[in-house]
Amino acid sequence: MHRTKVRVVEDALDANNTIARANRDDFDRHGVKVVNFMSAPGAGKTTLLERVLPQLEGIRVGVLEGDVQGSMDADRLAGLHVPVTQINTDPGFGGECHLDANMVRSAVPSLPLEEIDLLVIENVGNLVCPAEFRVGEDARVMVCSVTEGEDKPLKYPLMFRTCELVLINKIDLLPHLEFDLGKLLYNLDAVHPGVQRMMVSARTGEGIGEWRNWLSTLAARAEAPA
Amino acid sequence: MHRTKVRVVEDALDANNTIARANRDDFDRHGVKVVNFMSAPGAGKTTLLERVLPQLEGIRVGVLEGDVQGSMDADRLAGLHVPVTQINTDPGFGGECHLDANMVRSAVPSLPLEEIDLLVIENVGNLVCPAEFRVGEDARVMVCSVTEGEDKPLKYPLMFRTCELVLINKIDLLPHLEFDLGKLLYNLDAVHPGVQRMMVSARTGEGIGEWRNWLSTLAARAEAPA
Repeated sequence: MHRTKVRVVEDALDANNTIARANRDDFDRHGVKVVNFMSAPGAGKTTLLERVLPQLEGIRVGVLEGDVQGSMDADRLAGLHVPVTQINTDPGFGGECHLDANMVRSAVPSLPLEEIDLLVIENVGNLVCPAEFRVGEDARVMVCSVTEGEDKPLKYPLMFRTCELVLINKIDLLPHLEFDLGKLLYNLDAVHPGVQRMMVSARTGEGIGEWRNWLSTLAARAEAPA
Repeated sequence: MHRTKVRVVEDALDANNTIARANRDDFDRHGVKVVNFMSAPGAGKTTLLERVLPQLEGIRVGVLEGDVQGSMDADRLAGLHVPVTQINTDPGFGGECHLDANMVRSAVPSLPLEEIDLLVIENVGNLVCPAEFRVGEDARVMVCSVTEGEDKPLKYPLMFRTCELVLINKIDLLPHLEFDLGKLLYNLDAVHPGVQRMMVSARTGEGIGEWRNWLSTLAARAEAPA
């Protein structure tokens, strides 16, 4: 009798991670770098994209827009002449509050992977569940706006802990707020010590150049040998 | 042979609603009115409670705090000398992004229902899933801050559609924002025509008296005969 020993690794039981790896493989095959872009509702994700995408010279960008319903953000970004694909989590996914790997998988055939270098996946506005689902990204970027208060890293630690870059947005409003930036950074370092952070304002453009450089570097990064 | 005909109503299959009704019965038995208080992260729920609770003279208030983890908001409100009970959705509930009827049920034995007239349930900061789960409340109040942009009712319609009152917060910041209040109200009426709304500022106290009156009226409301 012939026996094949199958080692069931815990990770492999996680269907989401399995599908995320399939997405990852497709992105890698086309040399596309992928950013999973997350925040609370209204933190400024779309406005930040409107600001930075036109500055990404020489890099071909595509956007995958995740929303519960509607295509308002996709419509805004389509004005920038970048290819935008919309996923709505409402029909078929039951109004989910996040994107998961399978939703992104369902959009892969619609993505122009041959024609882009960088894919930005704008997740559903939510600080909880999006952090729990890898979708096949190279990097996670989150936006935290200063109008949300200094306590958010402590209240939503998984989101802050699993991202590579935190954009601290709406800093143009600092003179009008009772907001202690030092306290936010202290709380940020408490849950994710030393994580890269940039102070930005989608409104004034402050810090957008620094973020553009970060995205350019990501898009240009050569694959490490497997 | 004796037959009992059981009519299975679709609603009864919904475990959440069944448990919400059990909560409702417990609250009614003690004459406690219940508000399910919801918003995006950082919209100002806790600060609004800090403002309004001390003004609720003659009404005995309790708070049930829902957070993924930690007890920062509960600690803040405990300073007001109101009984505060904390639910964390992280241990035991898997880091849920919302409260559901069963989580509230698990807290009912800890609530001082004999000693309060009004219970405010501060939900997890999230504009998607909290709207899907009744917890046994009399009314739903949501906070929408003007820093979040005018498009939120269109992007998160269920939340805006299922609440009885919308508090439009942080209006002290209006002079410093490119924000069209008329557009927000237009979008609000598009998803929930005529829903009651109040312009408030937790910072300056504007509109807090109007909200206090609304809560007082709710707490004093006699039960309609069953």
